[in-house]
Amino acid sequence: MRGPGETAKMRAMKIGVYGTGRFGALWARLLSRKFTVVVHNRTPRPSPDPSISVVGLDELAACDAVFLCTAISSVEPVLENLAPRLKAGTLVADTCSVKAYPVACMERILPPDVRILGTHPMFGPDSARNGFDGLPIIICPVRLSGEDTGFWRGVFRDFGLRVVEMTPDEHDREAAFTQGITHFVGRVLKDLDLKPSAIGTVGYRKLLEIMEQTCNDPWQLFLDLQHYNSHTEEMRSRLQESLRRILGRLDS
Amino acid sequence: MRGPGETAKMRAMKIGVYGTGRFGALWARLLSRKFTVVVHNRTPRPSPDPSISVVGLDELAACDAVFLCTAISSVEPVLENLAPRLKAGTLVADTCSVKAYPVACMERILPPDVRILGTHPMFGPDSARNGFDGLPIIICPVRLSGEDTGFWRGVFRDFGLRVVEMTPDEHDREAAFTQGITHFVGRVLKDLDLKPSAIGTVGYRKLLEIMEQTCNDPWQLFLDLQHYNSHTEEMRSRLQESLRRILGRLDS
Repeated sequence: MRGPGETAKMRAMKIGVYGTGRFGALWARLLSRKFTVVVHNRTPRPSPDPSISVVGLDELAACDAVFLCTAISSVEPVLENLAPRLKAGTLVADTCSVKAYPVACMERILPPDVRILGTHPMFGPDSARNGFDGLPIIICPVRLSGEDTGFWRGVFRDFGLRVVEMTPDEHDREAAFTQGITHFVGRVLKDLDLKPSAIGTVGYRKLLEIMEQTCNDPWQLFLDLQHYNSHTEEMRSRLQESLRRILGRLDS
Repeated sequence: MRGPGETAKMRAMKIGVYGTGRFGALWARLLSRKFTVVVHNRTPRPSPDPSISVVGLDELAACDAVFLCTAISSVEPVLENLAPRLKAGTLVADTCSVKAYPVACMERILPPDVRILGTHPMFGPDSARNGFDGLPIIICPVRLSGEDTGFWRGVFRDFGLRVVEMTPDEHDREAAFTQGITHFVGRVLKDLDLKPSAIGTVGYRKLLEIMEQTCNDPWQLFLDLQHYNSHTEEMRSRLQESLRRILGRLDS
């Protein structure tokens, strides 16, 4: 537990969240448990919570830390827009489901005196419906001191999250064969238009849950997961190979 | 609830289970909650429960009802072996995961004075680990009076099962696109050799559960599910079409 001094210090910290879609709204509400949170969305949207103000881009850029909760494909233009407005020492963190690409963008576009943290909170409104306890968040400290990394690690742990540190490439390889394959299978099943059945087995019901959960996320997230993670191509070819191998074993 | 007279009558009924593999052992134990149960296996195996005797084929054939818990591909030779030993009025029921094929075998091979019920208990030791409540069983009364059908429906309901009646072909179509696709996806994922991951999402963990559960069943069951159900071919082609369509949408 943190002492009252630290709690007050965190409440005084102002955190900006750029993008209040499905995930950004959830993330802003979670951060607002500890920090003063303001949000900005490219097209105006209502605040995700009465305690959270909607602000303009300049006010967002003046925050102590800014979390990007935009589509992966928007990271580059958002950073271009944000970079000239940031003051020295600000932390910019992305929350994308791939890591090598947005981290490379941040390193290239952000001024050298801006701190950088890659994060991937591996959950969304569906999987966090029953709380955040034990849900994984990956962190990739890029341009961040050990002390600052420790601070954010502690913040995420206090939320109940399971913090795993890895390099962007390690993350992308592992994510391609976990989250990437799950979303791919979910989209294929959705295309097949599977329906609940009176004779559905326990396993089939899990298959439907995977389909529903992955297809609740925007199509753009699916595209981005597959396009911006260089390891998903291997995942898709290996999946096709395995499918062909099983079909072959049925024929022989 | 049943009265004490009916309970005693059921206890006096002798039920034979042919085949004490993974499913047969579970099924024999479930039936022994109400009936006197004896079992027979082609190759000698220990009894699944101290209350259940292992008997020879003639003693099995002398039972009031005989449930076949063999591989689908063994149904035909087992029926050929059993048919000449059965007395008039005996009920023979299969428990195969496909219905049209074993039902056709039973109608062709069993003497006309032997009663026939197709069943598909849609669960196994894994899905029944926490009890039988609400697990589905499909019944296809083939050569069975309404009264007898009602009796078995009541027995299965008393076990907590959810009884669904359909024709063998209705069953096979629905099963191909529920159980059949689940097993197919499970086998493809197993071939891909997916592993638990520190950064596994909730959806990925469900995918692993499907893989583990379907691959706990014998490979022969998988082959039989795909070979003896005429609707699984359509399921497999539609799955491949959907996969190609999603890959195409990624490329465009």
